[in-house]
Amino acid sequence: MATGTLPLVVNRHKVPLTLFLLINSGLLNCQQFIVPYKAPTDCSAEEFFDISSLSCARCGPNQQRSTTGLSCICITGYQTLTTDKGSITCQLCPSDKPVLTTGGFECIRCPGSLTDEGNCKCPQGSVLVERDVNGNLLDEARCETCNRNAPALAVPNSSGDRYVFIPYSGNTDISSSGGHNQTFCFKHCVCVSAAMHEQVVWLQVFSNLTACQSLGNMCVMNMHSFSGLSTDACGLFNTIFRSRAALSSTQDISYWRNNLPWLYYGDEPGLASRVLQTDPVPIGFSFRGRNKNTDIKLLAAVYNVRGEFLRWEPVGGSNLQLCPDTTTKQAAAFSFGTAYQQSCDLSVAKLLDTHPEPLFYDVFMDLGGGENSKLLPLPTLVYNQQYNGRFINQESMKNWYLSRRMFLVDTLSGREKSMSSPPKIIRVASSVKIRFQLVPRTQEGQVFPPLMTVTYRDVPIDTQAVSITFSVEYEMDQNEARAKTDTALGVMGGVAVLYSLLKTVSWKRRIASPLIDVETMLKFLLFYAGDLANVFFAVTVGTGLYWLIFYKAQQFVSVLLPLPAQEEQFVTYIGCAFALKAIQFLHKLILQVSVDIFFIDWERPRSKATTGEPKRDPSPVSIWRTYFVANEWNEIQTIRKISPTFQIMAVLFFLEVLGFSNLALRDPWPTLERSAQVYTPPYSLMLRYGLAATLWLCIGVLQVIFFTVFHEHFVEDKIRQFVDLCSISNISVLLLSHRCFGYYIHGRSVHGHADTNMEEMNNNLKRESESLCGQRGLLPNTEIQTFQVSLTNRLRSQYERIREPLNRRSRPSRLMDASSANQFEQNARAYHTMNHFLGSIIDHAHSDMDYIVKDKLMFERVIGMEFLEPSEKSIFYNDEAHSFSDVLFYGNEATLLIFDTLFFCVVDLGSQSFVLAAVLTYVQQMIFRLIRNALGRRNLVNKTLVDDRFLI
Amino acid sequence: MATGTLPLVVNRHKVPLTLFLLINSGLLNCQQFIVPYKAPTDCSAEEFFDISSLSCARCGPNQQRSTTGLSCICITGYQTLTTDKGSITCQLCPSDKPVLTTGGFECIRCPGSLTDEGNCKCPQGSVLVERDVNGNLLDEARCETCNRNAPALAVPNSSGDRYVFIPYSGNTDISSSGGHNQTFCFKHCVCVSAAMHEQVVWLQVFSNLTACQSLGNMCVMNMHSFSGLSTDACGLFNTIFRSRAALSSTQDISYWRNNLPWLYYGDEPGLASRVLQTDPVPIGFSFRGRNKNTDIKLLAAVYNVRGEFLRWEPVGGSNLQLCPDTTTKQAAAFSFGTAYQQSCDLSVAKLLDTHPEPLFYDVFMDLGGGENSKLLPLPTLVYNQQYNGRFINQESMKNWYLSRRMFLVDTLSGREKSMSSPPKIIRVASSVKIRFQLVPRTQEGQVFPPLMTVTYRDVPIDTQAVSITFSVEYEMDQNEARAKTDTALGVMGGVAVLYSLLKTVSWKRRIASPLIDVETMLKFLLFYAGDLANVFFAVTVGTGLYWLIFYKAQQFVSVLLPLPAQEEQFVTYIGCAFALKAIQFLHKLILQVSVDIFFIDWERPRSKATTGEPKRDPSPVSIWRTYFVANEWNEIQTIRKISPTFQIMAVLFFLEVLGFSNLALRDPWPTLERSAQVYTPPYSLMLRYGLAATLWLCIGVLQVIFFTVFHEHFVEDKIRQFVDLCSISNISVLLLSHRCFGYYIHGRSVHGHADTNMEEMNNNLKRESESLCGQRGLLPNTEIQTFQVSLTNRLRSQYERIREPLNRRSRPSRLMDASSANQFEQNARAYHTMNHFLGSIIDHAHSDMDYIVKDKLMFERVIGMEFLEPSEKSIFYNDEAHSFSDVLFYGNEATLLIFDTLFFCVVDLGSQSFVLAAVLTYVQQMIFRLIRNALGRRNLVNKTLVDDRFLI
Repeated sequence: MATGTLPLVVNRHKVPLTLFLLINSGLLNCQQFIVPYKAPTDCSAEEFFDISSLSCARCGPNQQRSTTGLSCICITGYQTLTTDKGSITCQLCPSDKPVLTTGGFECIRCPGSLTDEGNCKCPQGSVLVERDVNGNLLDEARCETCNRNAPALAVPNSSGDRYVFIPYSGNTDISSSGGHNQTFCFKHCVCVSAAMHEQVVWLQVFSNLTACQSLGNMCVMNMHSFSGLSTDACGLFNTIFRSRAALSSTQDISYWRNNLPWLYYGDEPGLASRVLQTDPVPIGFSFRGRNKNTDIKLLAAVYNVRGEFLRWEPVGGSNLQLCPDTTTKQAAAFSFGTAYQQSCDLSVAKLLDTHPEPLFYDVFMDLGGGENSKLLPLPTLVYNQQYNGRFINQESMKNWYLSRRMFLVDTLSGREKSMSSPPKIIRVASSVKIRFQLVPRTQEGQVFPPLMTVTYRDVPIDTQAVSITFSVEYEMDQNEARAKTDTALGVMGGVAVLYSLLKTVSWKRRIASPLIDVETMLKFLLFYAGDLANVFFAVTVGTGLYWLIFYKAQQFVSVLLPLPAQEEQFVTYIGCAFALKAIQFLHKLILQVSVDIFFIDWERPRSKATTGEPKRDPSPVSIWRTYFVANEWNEIQTIRKISPTFQIMAVLFFLEVLGFSNLALRDPWPTLERSAQVYTPPYSLMLRYGLAATLWLCIGVLQVIFFTVFHEHFVEDKIRQFVDLCSISNISVLLLSHRCFGYYIHGRSVHGHADTNMEEMNNNLKRESESLCGQRGLLPNTEIQTFQVSLTNRLRSQYERIREPLNRRSRPSRLMDASSANQFEQNARAYHTMNHFLGSIIDHAHSDMDYIVKDKLMFERVIGMEFLEPSEKSIFYNDEAHSFSDVLFYGNEATLLIFDTLFFCVVDLGSQSFVLAAVLTYVQQMIFRLIRNALGRRNLVNKTLVDDRFLI
Repeated sequence: MATGTLPLVVNRHKVPLTLFLLINSGLLNCQQFIVPYKAPTDCSAEEFFDISSLSCARCGPNQQRSTTGLSCICITGYQTLTTDKGSITCQLCPSDKPVLTTGGFECIRCPGSLTDEGNCKCPQGSVLVERDVNGNLLDEARCETCNRNAPALAVPNSSGDRYVFIPYSGNTDISSSGGHNQTFCFKHCVCVSAAMHEQVVWLQVFSNLTACQSLGNMCVMNMHSFSGLSTDACGLFNTIFRSRAALSSTQDISYWRNNLPWLYYGDEPGLASRVLQTDPVPIGFSFRGRNKNTDIKLLAAVYNVRGEFLRWEPVGGSNLQLCPDTTTKQAAAFSFGTAYQQSCDLSVAKLLDTHPEPLFYDVFMDLGGGENSKLLPLPTLVYNQQYNGRFINQESMKNWYLSRRMFLVDTLSGREKSMSSPPKIIRVASSVKIRFQLVPRTQEGQVFPPLMTVTYRDVPIDTQAVSITFSVEYEMDQNEARAKTDTALGVMGGVAVLYSLLKTVSWKRRIASPLIDVETMLKFLLFYAGDLANVFFAVTVGTGLYWLIFYKAQQFVSVLLPLPAQEEQFVTYIGCAFALKAIQFLHKLILQVSVDIFFIDWERPRSKATTGEPKRDPSPVSIWRTYFVANEWNEIQTIRKISPTFQIMAVLFFLEVLGFSNLALRDPWPTLERSAQVYTPPYSLMLRYGLAATLWLCIGVLQVIFFTVFHEHFVEDKIRQFVDLCSISNISVLLLSHRCFGYYIHGRSVHGHADTNMEEMNNNLKRESESLCGQRGLLPNTEIQTFQVSLTNRLRSQYERIREPLNRRSRPSRLMDASSANQFEQNARAYHTMNHFLGSIIDHAHSDMDYIVKDKLMFERVIGMEFLEPSEKSIFYNDEAHSFSDVLFYGNEATLLIFDTLFFCVVDLGSQSFVLAAVLTYVQQMIFRLIRNALGRRNLVNKTLVDDRFLI
């Protein structure tokens, strides 16, 4: 088992192969350095608690445990003899002096009876005297009474062997001074004295005692740093460590020598990763269910600076957590899965006050097991540890040099000259971090041995405050998850390319242009932006939701959240999704506000020609029906399938009022209500995004369902109403979203006339409701009023020729001031021509620009592209789904919803405030609605000649 | 100065008059019990610090201060002699024994030289021996060397006068045991021993020492309770207190006897209120400016259970605040004006661990003053204090019995048998509350002496946790403020009655009914509800704003917030305001959806009669203009002068994002940004209300200004647009909100015809913009199109007669199924008759129902009532302000805004969540908008015969 590796003997960079093998085999044999838990009370009467190895060891013959349990003493009646090696032997007192002296080192005769402990007993009021004032042992002990004439208060001293005189007050001063002197003396002996040789001898004599621990503590106070020379504490420790190579190691751990504290792991390169990432801790964490186990039980063996073992202490409360806080909150640090960070500024004065001397902690993880519970030593990484001048623990993991034992505050070594002078500098563990790493692909919540990283800081005494941090982190290897994300992105991105290509082809057809030019490329990029945005969105929401569900709902721990640093890539993806979606949204917005629209009025003047009379100027057809339809069209520009404000309010209600935002906290509890009394961990950006996006989408989808299924059937359907209005008002609508593609709403009144008075209108409506007249469809006896239209190039050219005077209108009239009146007449003429032209097209009056009506193939619908090219005849596709709403907000709900979602989430990720995100999303929606309304209205005025005073 | 009042001598309920006067004069002489601050280090070399009176006292002759400063010792070379009374005298040693022994009580000869302290000095390696083992003094001291043959480690003991032998380990056990034994012994002497007489003697001997303090502490541990018998600690204390009546009192305070601690104020009835509410503390608190002073400096003299004075300690950190928290947060307790409350559950085990023995605090307020700083003792009220079995401190203030000195945790007196056994019960100060009361009408931030209220609780040792509270409260006399509020309410409520009466009278006129019936009473109550709601609203907002401004902006403290209990009345007022406002709102809503409306179409059929031809059936007048106007009217039903959703978002943004909600915290800082590191006090309901209501109103008013000044002039004005539309479409609107009162919008086209085609419409619009045709007003050459109308009874009767068939429509048709067709014809006829009738009225065609047009008097406008009764002719009042919008949401913005404000505030007061309030306010607005729209639409359909399919 002895591997023979000595930190200072083996050169770090030239490890002989044999030695290296030995080290490795030793390590593998030692496996996980698990030691059984023993407290002083666990040792039997014949054993003492060896504070160096933290185990029970047998006492010698005729010996028994002392009251503290930390050493052996001779049993009653046996005299204590010291040996060279610092241990004791016991022998029976001779018969002429059968009784032990009080100290137990010599034998004496008694004047009277014996005490329970086997010493001489004196009557009440007298003291036992065993030595003369010179310290020479008397042959027979004497009982002496006190001289009561002493003027001061004479009381027996604490040992009861002498009277002392106390003055009237101030006895506290005397009693408290003892400890201090001792501390000082001891420190003086080990550290300050220059004669190194003498010390070593002295340490060997006292090696069974606390001296080695004390030396180790000094090395710890020096932050485990050494420089190869053996003149500092760590160097001295290593010298002794080397000299003990021959002795067997403690607890089967090769780095732990008999009678010495365990301060270092080996310094072989790569040992750290083997220790930290090879064997899992043999317990599993589970968040719920029968085997629920989230308690991280840490135990610390506490030593004082003199090397005395004080106690076993469960870590928690405030022993490692210097920042004051309530017990409940501090306990959260040791609930597995709860990311814990506690920071504060502590005043140096207070630290001086509360930590008069440093305490040293050997921290173990309690593996449970009831009576025979096992302990796993926590490897410690001292961030500032120097090794021959290099800060090796700040380098990569393969150079790390793990250690054991730590302290929190050292106000002692900074004192100069005497113990009563204030220190010039104090050393504080300014950051203590415990990091748990999950075993990859574990299903039972197994972790590797946790690593404790300690950063010490030297604080001059005149500093006001020092910043202290205690944190517990949980991480798992994220490479696999990241690779999966990237794969998904790659695959879906590829599919998106194909889909965008398809869209581009469809677009080329619809504008009837076969050329591949720069515009086509640009269009492709714009389509691709939208599709790629969807890919990024799907992947990020999926990932966020994955973490939300798997992290919050898992029973045995199998996944842990990415650390904040590991979330950066994810945030980048969200940023991409948002930027690309914004491009798509703006693109759609621009297309929508430049769509071609024309209202075809079917109403013809009522011919008053009766009984052969000559036709006269008919009364004009009223324009008010067109105004009405245009006004309604203007109003439905920005209606949506959801109520955007209700959406915001509902999301806010769930997140902030019902407390859903608490689901995004970095702990495994899926509870909504958090008391102010318990610890609140920080938020995870990933969970926040997953939560907000999912909630937004869910409420959005629910709203869409509510509006399309319930509201539009039972309350009102604005789109259906518009189509009906067209029919009642005898007006058709032709919308051209592309050069040769668009939508047609057939609004020819079944009654012939709509421009009539109230009685006739009501009669018409009544007749229709009683099915006394024809159906509204374009084809006879059909109901279908809405169509997608593919126009021939010829038709479109003719359309543009007629529209030509209208286009001039938007140009500034620079040359003639009187042109506007002239212009207006031209416009009116163009309007009538267009009305007549389009009407005759629909009536099949132009044989060279005829059209056919057909159903769209299912596949055509799916990929959004027409297979037939309208070369001879235009094609009207039946479209019962009102797809003309694609040129309104209404038909682009998916894009808008995703854009809003991303906007909300991006603002939230930037500000960590759902309320701000809600407010800004509202403002964004309002601004885009205003822009869309204003531009759409201007477009409508330009394209239909309806005065904007009627679009109210 | 000695008033001679002894707590137990004077009967609480029968104080002799003379004594009472004496007490009072003593009190007045003593004034505020202010004492100067002295620490042991402040005393000169010839003085010692008297821990009983907390002042410096002179030492006797040949004496000097001891090192601790708490007693006197003899100067070098003087022998200490004790006297009967517990003090010492000093005398020079005789010349044959010129040197003092180590204790200083006797004189001796020296074998060698002297130490610096004037004792005998022995060479290094030997100890000084002055007595034999029996304690008898030697004539000459000896220097003895140690016998080095001892087998154990022989080291000099802590006094350096003897060698002691230490075993190998466990020396900590020995060194730490001394203190424990001493504690135990002492407690045994004073408490457990039954012989009361001996104790008193003993106390008198040691009266200069700590024993009286110790006895006092025992009384404090007993919660200051006594029962008249002198067998308990407080009884014994009072016995001694009485016996010292002859001696002068300490620090000029009659309740503070020489050498005794000050435990009680007197027990005269009413003393508490005189102490607490007579003289202000002579310092002023100020929140800002050059004299900023918010630090409450408390100092405590700390004693241990043995009565030893430990130190002066500034209160803060964690000495009185048991709950753990960061230093910054704990310090907030002592920042004047910050309501502080800290509660937590502490585990009993931890308390046992951290408080092995109780500490006793005499708390003073430090009045400042640099070198000679003054202290004001804090009166303490022990809530559980018993006086002959009565809990007098839980009764009214005049029975209170104030005391001094407190402790936090007593784990000592619950121990049975020995000090090492765990206590069965511990006593904890479960609630410590410091209450500051502001001097009424102070302008300099003066307060009365603060009262500390302590509630102790006995906790059995097997309890898991004990709840601990520490709080600091600030209060001022609220009676004046409340009286002012009530006065304002009374006066304004009276005015509201008059105003409501006026409204009722106006209403009676407008419905042309002179009778005072039940309906009139009801109407009066409804009007009064609205006016009273405004009164409550004005008063509560004013009060809230007053507190917000005056509390947060004051420099010298002159007002303090009401305590939560004092806010109840205020909340009731808000509730009243909301309930009454809701009644008014519903009333208005019902009136609005039942208003009478008729669209008068001026369009006449185009007569085709040319050149003598007979008249033929003209082409019908198109109903579409009426549809258009009705549709627009329907759309402006619920528009408002503000955007309600923007309002909510803006308020939320200010409150939650910009952090305005932090202004409602119970502290004097007007800062918006609060770090999580600092203490967050609770919210004040009053400030929350004041803040939210003010913010809501401000943003609302700003929005109204923006919309009326900017938006309606430069973007669009829906009301103006509607009036214009009437004009363009040749349709007038008659609105009757009361039987004989309503509004008229004159919409007769200036072009004669509006039912025409696009060219003519555009020409008309162009001609009008170029002022080529007449003006739109009702009277020739006027612009005024909108009027308030007072109709004659005759006109109204005729109107109703014509409308009569229409009213039937809404009734269910039970008798005949075929009636609907018949019904419709009747309706159409009625519609045409009405159209003709109203048109002819406007055209002055009915001489018996003529009207005049006039301006309304300014006073009529102000009080909203017409003076002229329309008996012969109806009266049309010019109304350029579009007051017809009173039957829309638009004209009732004030009511709606106040209702929304109150709704928001009421939800917030109930839930303490602005987000919830915002969400619910949005839902409320949405619901009422939907209701108003649906009912208004139904009303419009009923009254105008426009089919609801056109109201989209």
